[in-house]
Amino acid sequence: MTRSNWSVPETEVVQSIRERLDERAAGADGPPDVLATVVGVEGNAYRRPGAKMVLSADGEGIGAITAGCLEEDLVSVADRIRETGRPEVVTYDLMDDEEEDVWGLGVGCNGVIDVLVEPLTETYRPAVEAFGAGRDVAVLTVLDGGDGALADGDRAYYRPDDGTLRTPEGDPATDWPDSLSDPAGALADRGRGDTLVVDDRAGGTVEVFVDGIAAPTELVVFGTGHDVGPVTELAARNDFRVTVVGFRGAVDLDDRFPEADRTVTTSPANVDEALAPDERTHAVVMTHNFVDDRLVVESLLDAGVAYVGLMGPRERFEEMLEEFAAEGRTFDESELEPLYTPVGLDLGGGSPYQIAHSIVAEVLAVANDRRPGHLKAREGPIHERVDVGDGDDEGDGESDGTADDEGNNGTADGADEPDARAR
Amino acid sequence: MTRSNWSVPETEVVQSIRERLDERAAGADGPPDVLATVVGVEGNAYRRPGAKMVLSADGEGIGAITAGCLEEDLVSVADRIRETGRPEVVTYDLMDDEEEDVWGLGVGCNGVIDVLVEPLTETYRPAVEAFGAGRDVAVLTVLDGGDGALADGDRAYYRPDDGTLRTPEGDPATDWPDSLSDPAGALADRGRGDTLVVDDRAGGTVEVFVDGIAAPTELVVFGTGHDVGPVTELAARNDFRVTVVGFRGAVDLDDRFPEADRTVTTSPANVDEALAPDERTHAVVMTHNFVDDRLVVESLLDAGVAYVGLMGPRERFEEMLEEFAAEGRTFDESELEPLYTPVGLDLGGGSPYQIAHSIVAEVLAVANDRRPGHLKAREGPIHERVDVGDGDDEGDGESDGTADDEGNNGTADGADEPDARAR
Repeated sequence: MTRSNWSVPETEVVQSIRERLDERAAGADGPPDVLATVVGVEGNAYRRPGAKMVLSADGEGIGAITAGCLEEDLVSVADRIRETGRPEVVTYDLMDDEEEDVWGLGVGCNGVIDVLVEPLTETYRPAVEAFGAGRDVAVLTVLDGGDGALADGDRAYYRPDDGTLRTPEGDPATDWPDSLSDPAGALADRGRGDTLVVDDRAGGTVEVFVDGIAAPTELVVFGTGHDVGPVTELAARNDFRVTVVGFRGAVDLDDRFPEADRTVTTSPANVDEALAPDERTHAVVMTHNFVDDRLVVESLLDAGVAYVGLMGPRERFEEMLEEFAAEGRTFDESELEPLYTPVGLDLGGGSPYQIAHSIVAEVLAVANDRRPGHLKAREGPIHERVDVGDGDDEGDGESDGTADDEGNNGTADGADEPDARAR
Repeated sequence: MTRSNWSVPETEVVQSIRERLDERAAGADGPPDVLATVVGVEGNAYRRPGAKMVLSADGEGIGAITAGCLEEDLVSVADRIRETGRPEVVTYDLMDDEEEDVWGLGVGCNGVIDVLVEPLTETYRPAVEAFGAGRDVAVLTVLDGGDGALADGDRAYYRPDDGTLRTPEGDPATDWPDSLSDPAGALADRGRGDTLVVDDRAGGTVEVFVDGIAAPTELVVFGTGHDVGPVTELAARNDFRVTVVGFRGAVDLDDRFPEADRTVTTSPANVDEALAPDERTHAVVMTHNFVDDRLVVESLLDAGVAYVGLMGPRERFEEMLEEFAAEGRTFDESELEPLYTPVGLDLGGGSPYQIAHSIVAEVLAVANDRRPGHLKAREGPIHERVDVGDGDDEGDGESDGTADDEGNNGTADGADEPDARAR
């Protein structure tokens, strides 16, 4: 029986990879850990390509690649990988015949799922370090090197802020096709995985799984009231990297908000300098102090952040606007677009956790560019596709906005998805 | 310094009241615990009337009545109450003068807040027992008995399923005005609190705080996959009473889902008998097994439940409908209204917690009868008012649908609220 911690935030899976690499680098011995990554999905699937799970020799697992259908079997595959020391792509076909297709039409427990299973090695370190430093990164793994210079299992990295395909050692990956850079950048930015087939440098083709790992979205919470804890906790569960900001020598913030990635004590006038908000910043302002909130909101709007949720009634912000106007500061409509006040989705409920739930739901929706209605009312599929080309061209690094790739809430249905894979 | 657990789910506050009563009934001695209840709010407030906090003599507190503005002071009030043994209504006026009104226009830290502070006694037991048994209940407390038979601090109860105002001992509360029954029922059903002034039996008036404590909403989760844990955890945080249902001799459910209020192992054909779903039931169906899901959905729709969230793509449910039709079972539009598939709000995100967050957000919205858009886009105020009359009539037990009472996400602004209070 696998003891496991399946349903952890994605951030924790990556963190656990890092911890295990660190332990091994510090001299821990014993059988290697094994990493399983979904590299392909056809049919219904609970998780998308890129979903990861770490398996220890003692049977412990962190993360989930389905809703529990394959994980037990993976334990024996992992044992084999530990023996051979070589990566494998294991294909689970849970959609054997028509009968089963009807009767077993589950979610996450049918379809065809390709899983890359490999010994966890230092080749993964650049990815976890980039992630830890808040940078987008793509991990590239050769699934089929053909007759070219690349062997199955070979690995490279791409960080959009670096712009160069690199080996795990940090050198330019000169054996790898340059055409992978753009799609790797797009997938890193969106945190999506895809398998691509591209021309290699020897006139053949190479099949590569590109695992985009987006840096966690930053959420800055201004305030240290008792209502901040639930927001911090729920945001961390949802893979936000949370900063709690206190003013006037607020103390014990690390103890009081253990789920925060960091805490900062500064002054309302110093927000810009202390936190350097930018267009990727998401912030919730809940200091319960009018003057503080006003200064913070001004700094954030000036910085052009992606989202400011301001706790308080609409009239309170109108009062702020009057004061801004009295100082000669006015905001046009587009400047106010990122501002959400009252903060949160309209879910009803007034307990601290219910309020926090509605706030975090709003931040998720804005960060993911969704209109937060019922999925049952949504037209078309649930996940938009990141267009990285059909495997033969280089991709344009942009989402095409069409939606032919579904994933969340068990709604994955790849039937209409153009098959970018050679297999 | 108060050690406290402010931001706990409301359910935990009521549970802690019960535990403390039990401890004392079992012979625990020491200074009594003190209960603080918000009985009135004017201006901005983070919490609504009925918000509760339990204060121990050792300085521990559970629950929050503001976002942290008054709680420290309450500790000294609680000490006084322990000395005198008598309930008091303490008024905090945090809106002293105009200057402060502008500069201190916080949320939850201004306005006028009336707090009933009392020794926690057995008079509270009927309420926590009704809550524990899943029943709505209203706790009535005399704030001003005038010259009549009722004294300040006198207490009565009302359970809509019982229909009789009763004393804490369970006898009909013959000294209490009958006119309180209907509004108490309405407030119990909605879980809202209000202060009423009604004619007493001696020709005078009596001022009573009616604290409606709605039974937690039942959420039944069908499934035992690894994706069930986050749904259970987040639903419990949001004060749902969660039942996890497993099939085919599922074991260790209590260990695997510690946040569940209960777990049930039964068979898909036996759902009706084992769980007795009714029009108050909310359910999420995520067994990942087509046949099981189909049987469960049929039972739930037949029972006319309030909400069924079904995990899986739309096509999967269409397949179910075809099979129902082949068996001669069809559903008209109104029968399918409670069914939400794909389950959840459209928040994006595909991790187990993100999926769970969107599911619980949807259940919250449906349970609270909300359209889950951004609060910033909502017309009118955030909380509808439970119309229980203006204190002189008996109320009609119905919400009037108008919205002149705000509360959540710091949006309380009682300025437009008709003042039902004598003070």
